[in-house]
Order: sequence, then structure tokens, then C-alpha cells
Amino acid sequence: MSSPRHQRDDAHPPVIAVRQAVAIALAEDLLPLGDLTATLLPAAATGRAAFVARRPGVVAGTLCISEVCAQLDPALVVAIELDDGADVKAGGVIARLEGSFRSLLMAERTALNFLCHLSGVATLTRRYVELAHAANPATRIWDTRKTTPGLRSLEKAAVRAGGAANHRGSLSEAVLVKDNHLGAMTIGEAVARARERWPGRMVEVECDRLDQVPVAVDAGATLVLCDNMSPDEVRRCVEIVRAHPRGAASAVLVEASGGIDLSSVAAFAAAGPDVISVGALTHSAPVLDIGLDLDLDQGP
Amino acid sequence: MSSPRHQRDDAHPPVIAVRQAVAIALAEDLLPLGDLTATLLPAAATGRAAFVARRPGVVAGTLCISEVCAQLDPALVVAIELDDGADVKAGGVIARLEGSFRSLLMAERTALNFLCHLSGVATLTRRYVELAHAANPATRIWDTRKTTPGLRSLEKAAVRAGGAANHRGSLSEAVLVKDNHLGAMTIGEAVARARERWPGRMVEVECDRLDQVPVAVDAGATLVLCDNMSPDEVRRCVEIVRAHPRGAASAVLVEASGGIDLSSVAAFAAAGPDVISVGALTHSAPVLDIGLDLDLDQGP
Amino acid sequence: MSSPRHQRDDAHPPVIAVRQAVAIALAEDLLPLGDLTATLLPAAATGRAAFVARRPGVVAGTLCISEVCAQLDPALVVAIELDDGADVKAGGVIARLEGSFRSLLMAERTALNFLCHLSGVATLTRRYVELAHAANPATRIWDTRKTTPGLRSLEKAAVRAGGAANHRGSLSEAVLVKDNHLGAMTIGEAVARARERWPGRMVEVECDRLDQVPVAVDAGATLVLCDNMSPDEVRRCVEIVRAHPRGAASAVLVEASGGIDLSSVAAFAAAGPDVISVGALTHSAPVLDIGLDLDLDQGP
Amino acid sequence: MSSPRHQRDDAHPPVIAVRQAVAIALAEDLLPLGDLTATLLPAAATGRAAFVARRPGVVAGTLCISEVCAQLDPALVVAIELDDGADVKAGGVIARLEGSFRSLLMAERTALNFLCHLSGVATLTRRYVELAHAANPATRIWDTRKTTPGLRSLEKAAVRAGGAANHRGSLSEAVLVKDNHLGAMTIGEAVARARERWPGRMVEVECDRLDQVPVAVDAGATLVLCDNMSPDEVRRCVEIVRAHPRGAASAVLVEASGGIDLSSVAAFAAAGPDVISVGALTHSAPVLDIGLDLDLDQGP
Amino acid sequence: MSSPRHQRDDAHPPVIAVRQAVAIALAEDLLPLGDLTATLLPAAATGRAAFVARRPGVVAGTLCISEVCAQLDPALVVAIELDDGADVKAGGVIARLEGSFRSLLMAERTALNFLCHLSGVATLTRRYVELAHAANPATRIWDTRKTTPGLRSLEKAAVRAGGAANHRGSLSEAVLVKDNHLGAMTIGEAVARARERWPGRMVEVECDRLDQVPVAVDAGATLVLCDNMSPDEVRRCVEIVRAHPRGAASAVLVEASGGIDLSSVAAFAAAGPDVISVGALTHSAPVLDIGLDLDLDQGP
Amino acid sequence: MSSPRHQRDDAHPPVIAVRQAVAIALAEDLLPLGDLTATLLPAAATGRAAFVARRPGVVAGTLCISEVCAQLDPALVVAIELDDGADVKAGGVIARLEGSFRSLLMAERTALNFLCHLSGVATLTRRYVELAHAANPATRIWDTRKTTPGLRSLEKAAVRAGGAANHRGSLSEAVLVKDNHLGAMTIGEAVARARERWPGRMVEVECDRLDQVPVAVDAGATLVLCDNMSPDEVRRCVEIVRAHPRGAASAVLVEASGGIDLSSVAAFAAAGPDVISVGALTHSAPVLDIGLDLDLDQGP
Repeated sequence: MSSPRHQRDDAHPPVIAVRQAVAIALAEDLLPLGDLTATLLPAAATGRAAFVARRPGVVAGTLCISEVCAQLDPALVVAIELDDGADVKAGGVIARLEGSFRSLLMAERTALNFLCHLSGVATLTRRYVELAHAANPATRIWDTRKTTPGLRSLEKAAVRAGGAANHRGSLSEAVLVKDNHLGAMTIGEAVARARERWPGRMVEVECDRLDQVPVAVDAGATLVLCDNMSPDEVRRCVEIVRAHPRGAASAVLVEASGGIDLSSVAAFAAAGPDVISVGALTHSAPVLDIGLDLDLDQGP
Repeated sequence: MSSPRHQRDDAHPPVIAVRQAVAIALAEDLLPLGDLTATLLPAAATGRAAFVARRPGVVAGTLCISEVCAQLDPALVVAIELDDGADVKAGGVIARLEGSFRSLLMAERTALNFLCHLSGVATLTRRYVELAHAANPATRIWDTRKTTPGLRSLEKAAVRAGGAANHRGSLSEAVLVKDNHLGAMTIGEAVARARERWPGRMVEVECDRLDQVPVAVDAGATLVLCDNMSPDEVRRCVEIVRAHPRGAASAVLVEASGGIDLSSVAAFAAAGPDVISVGALTHSAPVLDIGLDLDLDQGP
Repeated sequence: MSSPRHQRDDAHPPVIAVRQAVAIALAEDLLPLGDLTATLLPAAATGRAAFVARRPGVVAGTLCISEVCAQLDPALVVAIELDDGADVKAGGVIARLEGSFRSLLMAERTALNFLCHLSGVATLTRRYVELAHAANPATRIWDTRKTTPGLRSLEKAAVRAGGAANHRGSLSEAVLVKDNHLGAMTIGEAVARARERWPGRMVEVECDRLDQVPVAVDAGATLVLCDNMSPDEVRRCVEIVRAHPRGAASAVLVEASGGIDLSSVAAFAAAGPDVISVGALTHSAPVLDIGLDLDLDQGP
Repeated sequence: MSSPRHQRDDAHPPVIAVRQAVAIALAEDLLPLGDLTATLLPAAATGRAAFVARRPGVVAGTLCISEVCAQLDPALVVAIELDDGADVKAGGVIARLEGSFRSLLMAERTALNFLCHLSGVATLTRRYVELAHAANPATRIWDTRKTTPGLRSLEKAAVRAGGAANHRGSLSEAVLVKDNHLGAMTIGEAVARARERWPGRMVEVECDRLDQVPVAVDAGATLVLCDNMSPDEVRRCVEIVRAHPRGAASAVLVEASGGIDLSSVAAFAAAGPDVISVGALTHSAPVLDIGLDLDLDQGP
Repeated sequence: MSSPRHQRDDAHPPVIAVRQAVAIALAEDLLPLGDLTATLLPAAATGRAAFVARRPGVVAGTLCISEVCAQLDPALVVAIELDDGADVKAGGVIARLEGSFRSLLMAERTALNFLCHLSGVATLTRRYVELAHAANPATRIWDTRKTTPGLRSLEKAAVRAGGAANHRGSLSEAVLVKDNHLGAMTIGEAVARARERWPGRMVEVECDRLDQVPVAVDAGATLVLCDNMSPDEVRRCVEIVRAHPRGAASAVLVEASGGIDLSSVAAFAAAGPDVISVGALTHSAPVLDIGLDLDLDQGP
Repeated sequence: MSSPRHQRDDAHPPVIAVRQAVAIALAEDLLPLGDLTATLLPAAATGRAAFVARRPGVVAGTLCISEVCAQLDPALVVAIELDDGADVKAGGVIARLEGSFRSLLMAERTALNFLCHLSGVATLTRRYVELAHAANPATRIWDTRKTTPGLRSLEKAAVRAGGAANHRGSLSEAVLVKDNHLGAMTIGEAVARARERWPGRMVEVECDRLDQVPVAVDAGATLVLCDNMSPDEVRRCVEIVRAHPRGAASAVLVEASGGIDLSSVAAFAAAGPDVISVGALTHSAPVLDIGLDLDLDQGP
């Protein structure tokens, strides 16, 4: 469903984030008594398993497969066939496991819960990326801070796997002045304070109206966020920024945001913003349907 | 969108689960430097905020609002207007906050990420519940173990808020014999071992074919899972179970499962199963659109 | 002290429970300065160690030995000679270690604290199992939720090592209606609500009097708990249940509970209940006396 | 069962240890779904509860009651009637709770698991203390590092509640040279190295034979541990130490250890050691039987 | 020692960072047995305490005082007299406590360890700020990622308390291309990739030679880092940047870094960079000498 | 800078302390998005790195290097060239790494933050040790509890690496009666209570005046702490103790403490105390300047 040009090689989350998330998830599924049903099988039984996509999509979360196995049973052999960011067809094998059958059964659901969710995020992201790219190759898709609690690091990596880029990782990373902040100060005051307190950082200003745009650029904003505007308004906003001395050559970026969905993203991209941010990438992506095909080894 | 008969009074997750999830989520959004933008406002500024639904739905996750505030700034005053399980209309106020404006800004996104996701789960659940109930008041909707890693406890409570019930909470809670287990033993052997090892517990047997159903009931299964069957096959399965001496009066329950969605749930319910389980409740629910309206108090 | 028929192959706790418990225990014994006394020995000294039972019993907790070594010094070589659930004679070797002598000394007490306690639980459990089995092979021994805080998962595994079975793992797993709940509703109401809220789950009803038993069975209870009754009352209870249409063929189980000890367990078993639960298995088991025999390698 | 002279006012564990242990224990009992059975009762029901000893003993662990309630439901009102170290008679009330009936039910087992176990430790400790004191008022009872993993801090406080004293809290606190260390160096070398590496700290030397005792005292040991000796040998050991210039007036202490139980502790105390250490205090104490009497408030 | 113009009102670390750091520190100092010496005093004794500076400096870390008390003994009354960022004279009182004397003794060292270290960071920072400001009011002082492990959030807040600003909080926040990265690509390639992968973010380029500076600005860097240059070289670098079309009016910032200390910071500031970063602020600041004056209340 | 006689072979902290501290530090530097800049390099690039001292000093913290690599990327090859406690010259290589270039870049700062800080502690400690030893070979240097929060275990190991010894590890380890305790009881009462409550433990008494010294020794103190005295007063104190029957042959130790720095430590050592404690070792040591030299492997 996508071209290789969107595949990034930085789509893995930090392994320390994976380690913690997997530990929590395994505890959820196995404590206190372990897998009752697995105990009905002989402890010595072994087998093979394959993570198989039931529908086409983009892979994300393979580090979670490895980590689930490492934490549950280091003797499990894991082979990742398709790395994060790769396209997978219906029927395609993402990873293979081999080892204790009980361990395979215990790993199944936790590994799938990560893999299906993160691949779902990557797959939805890819659709936005494709649509935007077709309309305007210069426009990038951004995620937001609207992530699932506890999974920000993993979901933001899945967004990269889908070919999009990451907006700020947290409130601590950059300045984004919204209307709520502007009740107590002007745009000019806000940007000046941001420059004073947090020199060097990205300073973005949310504009609800076109007349705020030149004010924000004059003030020194490095990004202008067009919030809940129509594509035409975004286009006008881009023109204002590009026409400004500071805004030439994307020294000031324009972001479109607010209720943009698969039906409208092309129109917004065509309006020329540098980035379009979409909360739905992380907060409303359905899972990619992936299953685990298990085969019990037959005894001699 | 629903009648009060679906509202449960046990829709709160255990507070200890909320505490841990909120601590992780706040760390994601605020470390290491805190909210850079909030510091542009005067430290003494105060204000009010309201969580307002932009669309109608079912509320879940209000304990997360209280806990976010407690962990960030215990001086914030929190008033929950609509509790978990309540219907909310577009424009309806779910909760109100009052206190330090900086604190309100810091609480906003983390509280919303919980509230929108969990209310999204509850809202989607309610739709399944309504459709099933209209077709067959005796059929209940169940969730699955296909939950978002780290949020099982909270999502399963949101499912209750939506008026459905919880299937097993973990692998440790009950026995569910699937086709993968049956490669190494017969249904009869599996149930007998389950009774031996885990006396007293629910023992469910997944049946892919109708001829397995009487075998499972004979063996002593307390639930029969009709996996990926058509409504007609489910209906036949129900008949088989009800006609069996052990299965009269729901002493053996019938569960329908596998790819049942909003378009088909009524047909499945009409087939008469005791429960219908739907993974999508927790793995693919879009958020309920809820915003935080903020008002800065004006100085004297 | 027991026959092999009681040995289960599902007596290991989930490794994730072991990992966390061992990490906490090592911190208790080694922080902040490590083992002061071990530093008196040369850092390069090596040796061998054997966990040797001083008295006969049943082994449990061997995963803790491996995990203590893995966390302290992965270069230690661990060989488990007798797995969880095995009988050990006085003088029998349960496990052997080899490697840095300082590491052996540091591992000693933490490993023994787990091994002695959990083997103590398994050994006491085995005694109950043997006595009950001799009186009535159909009666099983159950543990309770009266476990040592922080060790539920490990102790319940030790109970399995001893040949008994696990009652519910937590309040979250099954419904058990006690007298305290019956102050606000009848048995019938309680069971009906349980069926409505938690379909499919085990529903147990505590009966303090014989006249409650048929009410509970009529209501649809899957277990009847005879609380603090005499063996004769338990026998009468079993008869009532077995005579009931729902209770034939153990479709409804009978549990005897309350102050049953080694002197009375045979009499209770002879009364015919399906399960007898004993809190003392986990809350009052004395340790099994196991020591670590250490040998320092002699230099050339 | 004891005189007030044994009651200490330092019998509470550090609250930070209580907080962590309680959090773990509540998670064990309530995740993921909470208390299924409590949900059968009306959410608004309130009641009262009393922790009542079924047998006489010594109280320990009351901080755990307060902490369980604080973590579960801060609206619960807690009144501690008998503090740690106090004697309780059969029927005596240790603490009272008041508030949400569901919360009382959820708190019950976790609070009791701490209270019964720790009071069991305190009660057994008191018996040793009483017996030793009657035989020799100058002899103190000590615990060991043979504690339940995860509960060292709480159990050592319970030992103080029972009127005994704490041996070293961990390997990191003091030097104790055992036979395993003496395979690689002489007693004199060991003590000298301990003095060099860990100046100022207690240095204890385990003596298996009487001829080691003067060597240890000459070397500068501050304690001599008589390991697995008879009372007569301990008496001889005390004489040797007291007759030594360094050992006068308890400047060097004598500890008796190894298999001392309730039947022999008086004889050992009469032999005159300064301290007698007993692993069973913490590793094999049966619980003190304490129950929670619950009363549901009646509506108007 | 400083003028009020340097005092910021955003000098508190996020409270969630304080909570975690304090919990760890209290465990270090109190487990397993608590404060042995405090137990020698009567449990009922009360008193007052004051944190008093022995030397002049800048306050930081007062949230840690409150948090230590909250975690140890919520009954302690805490009054902060001088907030983070305030100047304190020798003899000045920073905070006062009142309550249980044992609790005051237990809180003392942990609270002081935070307060003295963080105030030491703030005080050293202030000296750099004062010297730089006197030489060039437009130059700001920046910290680095050379922080004490576990304390980044708290130390970076202390830097703000000292009147300086925070460079990036982590590797995850901004792009900083160093010589190590330039072994595999040109400056132009690096900046272009950064713009592609991480649009909108600050992109800084480390220049070891003056000829790299125009290349970096041409490439689109938002900061130029003059690494280990002399003040004259920095001045030349500033001139190059300011003369560049992109660099006018601080749209591109110049950072001086590398071995700048108290003796040279003025000369570097006079060279005109926008920011000067100093690792020593966080990795080598001596403590500010602060003591706790304790007064025991006298009984009636 | 020092002689080998000061090198100890017990200078490693417990590995469990290292594991936890490293996990926290890596999270600080890498979450949520990982190392943005490292992603600009090819994922397959490999290289070599060496930790090189820029100035001479004493090494400490090498376990942190290994642990950082183990947690980030187990495929990194680590070779420790100079172990904790070793002298390193300017230009000396402490450790070498080999593997993924991205991983090397991610490991760099976290590993250096530990290594530079802990080696800084060891290096400063060595200077005190050398000065004291030259003046009086019998005097030892001690650290204090004035450690950096979260790093006590690691810093106390670094003190040992520097050739000094550890005072008590926590409030829980030994009794130290200070002036604050003496407001409520006499020295005699304090020591007697300590002996009663905490038999066998080190009991130290802080003396602010010479007349307190014989009182403390009479009372049975095992250490006398001369607080804020001049060298002459310390000498007099030593004489008093040595002349006392209990104090002969260092059975009672004398500690000098309070404001002793590099300029005065020799004079204090010459006064003859057994130990001199110096808070600055851990609270004010500047880092040892160590860098990481990186080399990118060239492709074929």
C-alpha cells in the first residue's frame, strides 16, 4: 500500500521504553497464577509460531515481540522477518518463534496486543502520509500528544514507522502558545517571554484567525499553527508566512491542525502547509489484524 | 443514546490501577522540564476549566481526572458532574476544575488522554450493547483480553461503564481451551485435566465446528465458544447446548466470537447466545471527542 | 514422604513474579554497601555450593535460586537437581552453584529465604494432601487468599508443588458471597446479581447453616462453601447437593473450610467434599530446613 | 501474656516500607477487575468494622491497616485501639474502621494478611522473650536475616513489638565472620581485615568450638557467636569471654545461636549469653488469629 | 549576591520528579530499621527546626523539603520562607518545620542533601549569570546534559533558580550535530536530514573551526555551537552569523561552549554569543552550606 | 597520584544498585523519542569508542559503563581497562567499546555522567587519603551520609575506590548520638538506651566539648566524635580516650569531623584520631574530566 520512500530506519522506540511497557503488560496477563490453560499441555511440548498479517498494512512494534519472549522465556528463538516500517501483505509473516509450546501460548496475546496496536498506528499513519504526499510532496504528517497513556514512546515510533514525523514529545520539549495562554498576554509578549526563558527552542503560536499570523511571525515564532481553519484559510496563511521576510524558505513553518481526517487531508496538503498534525494517528487507530499461527511439534 | 438500564455502579477501575497509570502518563508528558509554555503565564494566575463533550457518548475514566489533579496539584478543586457509565450529550459537562492556571494547563492533556480513550471504549461498547439488547435482551456483550498494554484494568472498567461485562481478566483467571491446545489432546482430556488442576473454575471450550459442541458439553465445559461461526451456526450451537441435560437453563453458556462488528451483532444476538465477545471494544475504539474549556480568572 | 501421583508439572510461578520478588529481596539484603564480610575474602576466590535439605520435604522455589544468581552474578553456574514438587530426603541436594566465592556468599541468604519458605509451604501442603487423599481420594486441598503480602504468586505455586490446587487468585477472579454480603441481600439475589454482572464466572456461596445449602444450589451457585461446620454437617451438606438436580456429578462443588488442621483434615475429607481449603498452607507453614554447604576452591 | 516492661515505643516500621509493601499487596488482590463480589452490594452502603483477636497475642502491623485504607479509600475512618507491641486478649479490638462497605470488604483480606502475620511474629517473639527473661533477665532475644522476602523491615519491627531486639538488618550493616569465611583466612586475619576495611563497625565471629573463643576475643571481635553449642558450652564460652580483659562488663558480647527453640531457650538463657538469636521468629511464626467483624449500616 | 532581575518564577521542578527522587532517597537512609538513634528519644517529643544557610547563596530545592515531610510524617508543619531562586544571606532561614521530634531527625539529612546540593547548583549558576550579565547583558547562561544521574529534572530546575536557562533536556528533545556525527556526512547533509526527520525542531551544529560556521548557517542550522574556541574566535563566529542573511536578529543563535569557567566567562560573554553553556553548573557545583537548627519543645 | 597500597578490591557497588540507577538515568536521557541526532547516521554504521581521562585521577564507576551498554544494546562489546580504584593518567584509557555507532552515541553521555562523577569522588577521596596518610598512617578517612540523593550506594563505593572507608550507610545501621539528641537526655542515658535497644551495635557520641569525652567513654560509647574541634582539641581528646581503661588499643575510636578540608586534613591526622570524616568527598567533589573518543568504522 505504500512506496519504500516512506520507510524510515529510525522507527524503533528506545528499548528501555519497550522493556518497561512489556513488563507491565506481562504482569497484567499472567499474575498471579500464570496461564492456567497452558498447563494442560505437557511441559516438554515444543512448537513453532508465526505472526501473520490477516490484512495488508505497515509493521510496527517488532521489538515488543523480542522483548516479550526475552522476559518470558529466553530460550524462545525469535526471527523478525519484517522490521518496523515495512509493508506487509495479507498473509505475510512478520516474525517467527520457536520453542516451548507453553511459552508460545503465554507470549501470544501480549505480543499481539502490542503488535496489532502499533501496526495499526503505523498503517493509519501511512494512509495519511500517502494522501498528503500525493497532493503535495512537501507536506509532512505530524502526530500529536494525544497518545495512549503509557505508550507515548512506542506510538510515536509507530508514527515514524508509518512514514510521518513526530511533533513535540512532551510539554517539556518545546513552546506552543495556544489561545488559552493568550488570555493573559499578547502574542508578542508570549513569544518574547518564550525566547527569554527558553532560548533556542522551537516556539509555535496557534492562530485561530488570519490576522494573528503576521503578528506571530513578526514576534519571532518558528511555527505558526493554523487551528481549525479551512484549506483556503490555510493556503492564505501559508502565503502570509512565505511573503514575510522571516518566513521565506520555510524558516518559519506552517502547521495545519484540527479535525483533519482521511477525507480532507489531501485538500489541506494541497494548501501548502509544511506539516499537518493528526491526533487520530495515535488516539483512534484501529488495530491491524494480525494473528499468531501455532504449530505443535509432533513427538517421535 | 442509551437507556439507564445499562448503567452499572461498578464501572470504576480499582484506584490502585488508576494511580499507577496516571503516574506513568504524567511522567511522559512533563519530564524533565515541566510545561515550558505554562511558565509564560504568571505563577499566581488562577482559572476554571470544564471537560465538555463535543459529541454524545458514555463517560468513563473520571477517576483519572481526580488522580491527575491529586498528583499534580492537590490544591486543584475537582467536581465530577457525570460519573462513569453516564450518558453525556454534545456540550455536556463531565467535570469541572478550579485552581492554579498553570496546573490546569499541565493537567489538561493527560486527563483528556485518559478520558477520551476510556469514554471512547464505553461509547463503542454501549452501541454494541444497545444493538444486541434490541435483538435479544438475554444476550450480553463481553470484552476480551485484546486490551491496550498497560490499560487492561481501566479499559475493562470502561467496558462495564458501557454496559457490557468482562470476560476473563487474564490468563490466570479461567481456562479457555482453544484449537491450539487441542493439537495435543482431545476436548475430553482437556476438560478433565482442567477440572483436575483447576477445580471450580470456569472451563470454556472453543468449538470451530458444530460436532465439537456436544463433545464439549459432555466433557463438562461451562462455556462453549462458537468461534468464527455464522449466526445460523451459532443458533444451532445454542440449540444443541440447550437440548443437552447439562445445558438447560444456561448452566452451560454459549459465547459467540470472531469478527462480529456493529453491522452483524444484532444478527448474532438474535441467534440466542448468552454472550457475544468483541475485541474491538478495547482494541479499536476511537476516542470520544472531549475538550477542556479553560477560563482564566481576571485580576481585581 | 509422598507418592509421585501428587507431583504437578505446573508448580513454577510465572517468571515475572520471581524476577520482581528477587529484586526486592536482594535490595533488602545488600544495599547500600554490599556484603561487608564477603569483602574480607579475595575477590578472585571461587567455590562450589549445594543447597542441602536438613530434613525431608517437598521442594518449591527453585526458580528463585536461578534468579538470585542471574541478578547478582550471571557468571554463577546453577544446576537444579530437584525441581519444584519433587520430594527431597534429609541430606538431599536440591541445587548446586559454582563460581565466585563472594557471589556465593551474597546469594546464600536470599536464595535460602525463598527456598526454605516456599518448600515449607509445599511440604505442609503435601501433608494435608496425603491425609485427605488417604481418607478420600476424590477430595482436593485448596489454598486461600491468606498469603504473605508480596508472595501470593510464589506461594500459590508452592501449593501446587505440594500437590494441592489453587482457590481464586484474587478478589478479581471469582465471586464468593459471604455472610457479610448477605446482610444486604438474600442468597438468591446475590447469585442472580453475580450472574448478571459477571456471567460465566464461578459463583460460590458461603453457608453457615444447612438450610442455606439448598437455597444456594437453587439459586445457581457453582460452589457451596461449608463454613466452620463439623464433618457431619459437611457430609449432610454434600448429600443435599448431590441430591439436587443441579448438583449431580459434581456440577456443583462443595468446599469445606474453617479451622481445619492436620488432625481433622482426614475426617473432613471422609465427609466427601470436593475441596477442603486450608489457610494455614500459606499463612503458617514453618520453613523447610535447608542449608547451603559451601566449599572454597583451593588455589594451585 | 506478658508484662509491660517488654513493650517498646519503636516498634513501627518506617512508613516508607509500609507504603511499598501495601501497594504491592493491594495489587495482588484487586487487579485487574477489583472485588467482584463487593459490586453486588449497593455502592452507597456504609458500615463499620473491627479487627478482633480470636486468640491472645501481641499486636504488630497496625500501620498497615492505616495504609491499606489510605491507598484504597481515604474516606475510611481508622481508629487504632491497640498499638504495635500491645498485648491483646481473645476478643480484644485492635482497630476500628468506618465508611463505605465496599471499601471495607476490599480492605479486609490485605489488612488481615499483614496484621495476622506480623502479630504472629510479635506473639512468638514475646514467648521467647518471656522464657529467656524468666531464666536470665540480662539475656536479650535477637532476630536474624532469615526473614520473609520483601518483608524484612516490617518483620524486624514486629520483632521489636514482641520485645526482642534486631540483629543486623542486612549484609551491609555489620561484619559476621562464619566458618565459610574461615576457609581462606584465620580468625585473626579476618578480624584485622574487618577493622581495616570497616573501622568502627561491629565485628562478630562465629565459633563452632570453644578453643576459637579466646582467639576471637584476642583478635578484637566485638561479638562471639556460639554456633550450635549446648547450653553448657555456651556457659563455658561466656566464662572465657568474661575472664578476658577485653570481655569484661559486656564489652564483648556473647551470642548463642543455632536450633534454639521454645523448649530450650530458657536453658540457653540461663547459660548467660548476652543475646540469643532465633531464626524462627521471622521464618516460622504462625499467624495470630485475628478476624474482621463487619456491620452493615441499616438504611433509614 | 545577586539582583532580583535574575529570579525566575519557574524554578520548581515538576512535582512528580520530586516525589520519585525523595522516595528513593528516604529508602536509602531509613531502610530497613528506621532511625536507630531517634528511637532513644521519647516518641511523644515535639520540636521545631529551621533550615539556616551558613553562607550566602541562592535557594533551590524547597519542594524537596515539603515532599520529604509529606512522605515521612504528614503531621509535620512546613513553612517555606524563601522560595527557589531567592537569595539567602548567611544566617537566613529558608524553611521552618514543626512536629514530632523523631520525624524532624529522620527528615533532616535527606532534606538537607537535596537542599544543599540544589542550592549549590543555583548558587554557582548565579555567579556565572552575574559575571556574564555584567560583561554582556544579552548573553544567557545554559546548562548541559552533564547532570547527576537521577537528578536531571531537579538540577535543571536549580539552574533556572540560579537565573540561567536550560539547554535541551535530553537526547530526545533537539538535534545537536557534533564532530562525531560529521565523520559520516557533511554538515549540509546532517542539517537536511534533521529537517526531514525532525521538522520544526532546533538543529544545532557544533563547529570546531570558523570555516564551518557559514556552512552551518547556510545549511539551515538554528544554532551554531562554537566548541572549545577562544573568545576571539567566538567573536568572529558571532560576526559571521550576524552578517549572514539568516542570522540577523538572533534568528540563528550562537552558543559558546567548552571549558568555560568563572575566570573566563566574562571574556566569552563579551564576545557576544547568545548563550554560553557550562557543564560545571550541574556536574561540579559544591553544596551550599545549609544546616538544620533543631529545638526540642520542653514539657510542662 | 597515589600508591597502590590504597587500592581496595571491594570498590564495586552492589550490581543491583547499579542496575536501578542506570535504568533511571537512561530514561532521563532517551525518553520518549530516543536520540534524535543519532538517527541521522546510518543504522548499520559501527565504530569504536574509548573512555579517556583528560586529567589524572582515580577510576570509579566502571560497572556503570557495562550496565549502560547492557541495557541499551547487549551487542556492544565492553572492555574495562582500568578497574575501580586504579590510578589513571591524563590520556589513559579506562574502557573501550565496540559496536553500533548509534548505540555508542546513545551510551556516551549517561556512561560519562556516572563515570566522571564517581571518579571525581574517588579522586578527591584519594587526595584526602594521601594527605592524612602522610601525616599519620594510622588515621583513616571516612565518608558521611551527605551523599547525592539516589547515589548513596555508588558514591560510597567510589569512596572505597579512593582508598577511604565508609561511615554508616544509613540511619538504620548504627547509633550516633548528637547534640540534638542530648537536649532530652544525658550522654549516659543515651548510651544505656542504645545498648538496651540495639545491643551489639556501634554507638557513637558526638562531643562538642572536651569534658564530654570521658563521660562518653565511661558510658560505653564505641566511638567518640570530636565535632568542630581544632586539631589541638582533637589531640587532647585522643589522649583522654587512650588514657581511659576502655579506650586503650583503639577499643574506643576517635573520629574528627566538621569543616575539615584539604588544607587542614594533615593537621587533623597528625592529632591522632582513628578516623576523619569528610562530607565533601561525596557532596562537593568536582567531576574527573573524562571524555569518550569515538571512531566510526569506514565501510569497505
